[in-house]
Amino acid sequence: MVYGHFDDGTREYVITRPDTPWPWINYLGTEDFFSLVSNAGGGYSFYKDARLRRVTRYRYNDVPLDSNGRLFYIRDGETVWNPGWRPTCAPLDSYECRHGMGYTNIQSTSGRLSSDLLVFVPAGASCEVQRLILKNVSRDRKSFDLFALTEFCLWNAMDDMTNFQRNFSTGEVEAEEGVIYHKTEYRERRNHFAFYSVNAAVEGFETDRELFTGSYNGYDRPQAVIQGKLSGTIASGWSPVAAFHLKLELNPGESRSLIFLLGYVENPDAEKWSSPGVINKVRASALRSRFDTDFKVDAAFRELSERWRDLLSRFRVSTNDARLDRMVNVWNQYQCMTTFNMARSASYFESGIGRGIGFRDTSQDLLGCMHQIPERARQRLLEVAATQFPDGGAWHQYQPLTKQGNRDVGGDFNDDPLWLILGVSGYIKETGDWTILDENVPFDNGGVPGTSATMFEHLRKSFDHVVENLGPHGLPLIGHADWNDCLNLNCFSTDPNDSFQTAVSRDGRTAESVMIAGMLVLIGEDFSHICLRTGRDSLAAEAQERIEAMRRAILAHGWDGGWFLRAYDSLGGKVGSRENTDGQIYVEANAWCAMAQIGETLGYPRKALDAVKQRLGTPYGIVILDPPYREYHVELGEVSSYPPGYKENAGVFCHNNPWIMIAECLLGRPEQAFDYYARISPAYLENIQELHKMEPYVYSQMVAGKAAPRHGEAKNSWLTGTAAWNFVAVSQWILGVRPEFDGLRIDPCLPAGLHEVQLTRLFRGCRYQIRVRNSGKHLRQKKVSVNGRGVESDIVAPGAEGSEIHVEVET
Amino acid sequence: MVYGHFDDGTREYVITRPDTPWPWINYLGTEDFFSLVSNAGGGYSFYKDARLRRVTRYRYNDVPLDSNGRLFYIRDGETVWNPGWRPTCAPLDSYECRHGMGYTNIQSTSGRLSSDLLVFVPAGASCEVQRLILKNVSRDRKSFDLFALTEFCLWNAMDDMTNFQRNFSTGEVEAEEGVIYHKTEYRERRNHFAFYSVNAAVEGFETDRELFTGSYNGYDRPQAVIQGKLSGTIASGWSPVAAFHLKLELNPGESRSLIFLLGYVENPDAEKWSSPGVINKVRASALRSRFDTDFKVDAAFRELSERWRDLLSRFRVSTNDARLDRMVNVWNQYQCMTTFNMARSASYFESGIGRGIGFRDTSQDLLGCMHQIPERARQRLLEVAATQFPDGGAWHQYQPLTKQGNRDVGGDFNDDPLWLILGVSGYIKETGDWTILDENVPFDNGGVPGTSATMFEHLRKSFDHVVENLGPHGLPLIGHADWNDCLNLNCFSTDPNDSFQTAVSRDGRTAESVMIAGMLVLIGEDFSHICLRTGRDSLAAEAQERIEAMRRAILAHGWDGGWFLRAYDSLGGKVGSRENTDGQIYVEANAWCAMAQIGETLGYPRKALDAVKQRLGTPYGIVILDPPYREYHVELGEVSSYPPGYKENAGVFCHNNPWIMIAECLLGRPEQAFDYYARISPAYLENIQELHKMEPYVYSQMVAGKAAPRHGEAKNSWLTGTAAWNFVAVSQWILGVRPEFDGLRIDPCLPAGLHEVQLTRLFRGCRYQIRVRNSGKHLRQKKVSVNGRGVESDIVAPGAEGSEIHVEVET
Repeated sequence: MVYGHFDDGTREYVITRPDTPWPWINYLGTEDFFSLVSNAGGGYSFYKDARLRRVTRYRYNDVPLDSNGRLFYIRDGETVWNPGWRPTCAPLDSYECRHGMGYTNIQSTSGRLSSDLLVFVPAGASCEVQRLILKNVSRDRKSFDLFALTEFCLWNAMDDMTNFQRNFSTGEVEAEEGVIYHKTEYRERRNHFAFYSVNAAVEGFETDRELFTGSYNGYDRPQAVIQGKLSGTIASGWSPVAAFHLKLELNPGESRSLIFLLGYVENPDAEKWSSPGVINKVRASALRSRFDTDFKVDAAFRELSERWRDLLSRFRVSTNDARLDRMVNVWNQYQCMTTFNMARSASYFESGIGRGIGFRDTSQDLLGCMHQIPERARQRLLEVAATQFPDGGAWHQYQPLTKQGNRDVGGDFNDDPLWLILGVSGYIKETGDWTILDENVPFDNGGVPGTSATMFEHLRKSFDHVVENLGPHGLPLIGHADWNDCLNLNCFSTDPNDSFQTAVSRDGRTAESVMIAGMLVLIGEDFSHICLRTGRDSLAAEAQERIEAMRRAILAHGWDGGWFLRAYDSLGGKVGSRENTDGQIYVEANAWCAMAQIGETLGYPRKALDAVKQRLGTPYGIVILDPPYREYHVELGEVSSYPPGYKENAGVFCHNNPWIMIAECLLGRPEQAFDYYARISPAYLENIQELHKMEPYVYSQMVAGKAAPRHGEAKNSWLTGTAAWNFVAVSQWILGVRPEFDGLRIDPCLPAGLHEVQLTRLFRGCRYQIRVRNSGKHLRQKKVSVNGRGVESDIVAPGAEGSEIHVEVET
Repeated sequence: MVYGHFDDGTREYVITRPDTPWPWINYLGTEDFFSLVSNAGGGYSFYKDARLRRVTRYRYNDVPLDSNGRLFYIRDGETVWNPGWRPTCAPLDSYECRHGMGYTNIQSTSGRLSSDLLVFVPAGASCEVQRLILKNVSRDRKSFDLFALTEFCLWNAMDDMTNFQRNFSTGEVEAEEGVIYHKTEYRERRNHFAFYSVNAAVEGFETDRELFTGSYNGYDRPQAVIQGKLSGTIASGWSPVAAFHLKLELNPGESRSLIFLLGYVENPDAEKWSSPGVINKVRASALRSRFDTDFKVDAAFRELSERWRDLLSRFRVSTNDARLDRMVNVWNQYQCMTTFNMARSASYFESGIGRGIGFRDTSQDLLGCMHQIPERARQRLLEVAATQFPDGGAWHQYQPLTKQGNRDVGGDFNDDPLWLILGVSGYIKETGDWTILDENVPFDNGGVPGTSATMFEHLRKSFDHVVENLGPHGLPLIGHADWNDCLNLNCFSTDPNDSFQTAVSRDGRTAESVMIAGMLVLIGEDFSHICLRTGRDSLAAEAQERIEAMRRAILAHGWDGGWFLRAYDSLGGKVGSRENTDGQIYVEANAWCAMAQIGETLGYPRKALDAVKQRLGTPYGIVILDPPYREYHVELGEVSSYPPGYKENAGVFCHNNPWIMIAECLLGRPEQAFDYYARISPAYLENIQELHKMEPYVYSQMVAGKAAPRHGEAKNSWLTGTAAWNFVAVSQWILGVRPEFDGLRIDPCLPAGLHEVQLTRLFRGCRYQIRVRNSGKHLRQKKVSVNGRGVESDIVAPGAEGSEIHVEVET
């Protein structure tokens, strides 16, 4: 079964059946106000923080799935149908959903009435526009009813779904003609409210959910819609909603456009009220007036499209493989922007409750979007660094609204500091902006008064935190976990009520991570280079010594004979060794040590990658380890808690696949690198949509591994470091356009099938026009010419702001 | 609209329409395994702890409401219907739900097929029995399909509803003929699993929810039922369920009994597996075999009925008011047992996530069920005392499974210690068991090593904690809050992300509670008495001095002229004073100071109670304060955060109404006491079922007050201290059968309308048969005779174990 296809011309994914294997979603919003929207119009909105400032209510793991969101009911004679099919699931005569860049458009027809719903969050406005155009495509005059409903969340999403003894008593609204204001808790400590409005006369309204649906009816058969009348009740407690009833009449061929707006407004404390108990609506009115005509909406939509056109113009490729082009030019970059905005907070798998912004996560996510939003990347790096502790460790996660570290999770994930170095060096390589190193940044957001330091000091402390916390083999101590959050070597938990990440029963001075060791070598080189370039020669030399020591430690204690070990556990036992029964080989340490070229003269990277291919390769990607753990290992933690083939226990954890692609490029094996790329790249999986289950236009975090009953089934789509790392792998290594401190390196590693590649790349204000002719034979002896002249180095320094550089490469 | 009625003969509440204003529920289970069951069969089950060990999944605030639970679908020709009406809501020819003591029975008919569903948790077994009897009441042979479904929760209810990125990958089941085992996480740290079984041959089974419902169908129209076939799939991740399909044929008049069992099993670590990856089912089989025939189920049901008959035989009354009798004899005592079992953890308003067992809550709940379960009350008191801190303060809440204090909430609720004294003195008064004082009890469950002390020492520290933490007026400091969790005088929160209870911005050395002062005087008398009776004369004298000092402080600083002040805030301002604009009078301090008879010679109690009546009385009960706060008061906290008329901001907070009833009895005003009783007693509210909305057989925590748009609408039914305190008020004060240290006091305070009252009371192994003749005139000069002989004292000491005492009272 095929559920949709790409439209490259419009940069849309077109879903042609509403009954997708799982709701296929899109993200709206670029700054503060965000929405999730499914191919049925389901989803929810929030302001800045999906946990603390949820605007509309969404029920996860609902039965039926995805019943909440933008609910429009058309009551045409005996028939009640939804433009997005759900929740009534009344049959449609036609249906098409187009997920585009920051918008979603659903077009459908039923009973010769056509519906065109456009949903987007305008740039620079805290609201979602829902424009619904209804058209009479019959030959007769049509009279029908339209009902629109939004269910509000009482702001704190966690409290909203647990604390009913309070929350069923607090709900408050105000209603005016065509506008319903949600003001729960505004009378106390909140200075914000939401509204839902329509730019047309309404027949009636409802603000009490139970009166809309009836107590025992679902959204698939709401009582008020069936009866054709809303009660006009002002909600008092229970569940406040905003619902409108419009009566419409259309002549044959006539259409009607209606603009619904879901807005979020903050008032200064002194301007909260217009009269006692009545909220000040001046700002709300101003916001509504910005989008109350088709002309204004069209303009806002054009502005949004412009913005995306600009964002996506900075890196574009044209090859003979349309799937590659659409991933690189559109969907991979789009997903990178989404992970930048959302981190891991809100998807159809991340409930927006559990995680804020991860230190490690966001530092990596930035790698995928530095070229699009360098200024915002800079800001984020400063924000992240401010959650570091004075000793170089860091809060593992922090809340986007408050910027405060998440105390339930704490710190002591010993890879965290290195990702900050990688992020900052990536930023400098992209922008050439060395001034970020001089910025003054607090530690723990000022939680330790009097401590702050330059960003460079933060990086130094990051580096030191790793090299000063080494274990018995001279390898870095792992702490709670490294990148693999589920490898918990100090946990030893036997209590199911423990968090694997935070329960610790060992002193942590023994268990070591070969992955962090590999990272230190590779990322340490960037740090050392930064020291050198900023005149800190002795620091650079010291760093080099540390790196070399680490390299030696890996060679001495990190090589298992055929591949790199993963770790030493807290009893000194090997993890990821042929000596083990299960979990003999892991991908992570092999990827990082191969990328760091450790033991190159001994052929270690090649051997390691061959072992990865042979033991971990599957048609759906590289599994994270093999064989899967069949039993729980108390000394390993969560990794062994998953059923074999899922997640960290031998699933295809897509995030690490591009590391192997990069390592294969370094080894000069373009066919293998590209093969890996195509195995997990969504555009290449269109023929297995039903098995894959997740959106075929974005990466998922995980695909069930070969040991799982549903091998090939994806989960946890959208919010994954996979997006950034695949973009790095494909753009910087396979296509080979790689920012370096001194310029843009052009070093393609193309499979023979890609014979001609044209690229355009905006880099430090200069546009590179790059053309690669690939014979598939001369990878090691490529010829590079710049503006028509052959050059020795493949690093091409940028010209003046606004200039253009033409690069030709033959391989 | 009337939805049901009491059946006094069977001790059942009979619900006659399925579309009750809100799901009306019952509780099953008496020891470790508990279930909630609605009048439609909705609800869920858990083992010991509703948060950490949830057995089945339930969606709170669902649309439609109450769709999860025991789902039986009968597919009879074209019709699919549920014996409990929901979730299909297919029309029934007849419907009746009987909520009884520890069981629920739903009988319904559709298409000449009758269904009789009996659900109960047997005594001494960790399972729920669901017996479904289907009978062909037509004149033709009938063939039809039965589907039964249970949806499992992945144990930790909090994690289950937030952590999908993990949980959608972990679900595991096993299936055998007629049994489906839910074993998620059993392979790692859990030693427990659940099963769902049926004692009959099945046509098919399903364990994957999505294959049962279809992705976009609700439980109201599950795809597999509509298609009439289950797939026999073994779930791998996503949402594991247990579903059975049975094909049935019945001759006219023939019936078929089917026994479904939802079981919970723990295996010792050494006996977890029968073979690699296959759970050891020996204990599960043994559990199933205990309930696999009608004979066995009937026997178990009889045993449960016996148990309840015994529990309810210890206090019984017979009057000329059937409503009073049914509340006192059945429903109030039943609710008291429920609050003992559940504390505030799991109801249709308490999601089982947020609160474990409250120190204050459970200490009070015990007052209502000491006479039924003295041994378990003793155990609970020891458990509660063990969560006390060495300084006499206490964890405000603790988790039932782990007994560990809830760190998110902490301590410093300064009334907490006094409730422990009240609970222990109540226990001694009931049982005469003074040995509890000598039990050794740890502090903070051993969290402070080397600290433990006798229970008496715990009480002494409790008393001292109050008298050693006094404010500027010599009144007790309030801490985070006293009984009124929403009166947060040290909080000053302006951040909506703060918890009012734990955010503290003041040092706490100023704000004082007049309510705690009144408690200290009243409960301190018990403490002093205990000192005296255990030979601690000087301690008793010291305590008396403290009590007198407190009494003087209240007289000097706690009287506002017409009533008792509520508190002093942390700026020294009065709370609950005529000087205030809003919140001029609160019920709590008036109740406790009146019960403590403070200022009796000055007429203060009478004045206070008259003010309560005049200012706080409504037809639906006494509101907690008046006038409601119209604005947020940062210096008062959560109390002012609720919309006027709801919850602590001028709702009828039923918990404190019985305190006023008791005070009225002490004042010798039986008509007023009884009037208050009848205003909130569920049995007296049958004619306002639609307005009241909640179950008409149990108390709710709150009824919307006079300032609320829905005055009279109840919320938060079942789990409230209202149950215990009303039982205390009606049994000990209105009916006047009151345990004292030296015997049972017989001191009725009856309104004139109750002219003859017969009581039977089991007290310390001795049965009292009590008869009261009430002229309505001689309250102060009652005549008491014991076994036919007139006596001076109304305290009647118990006779030998098993003896009977006849008491006659004329008033």
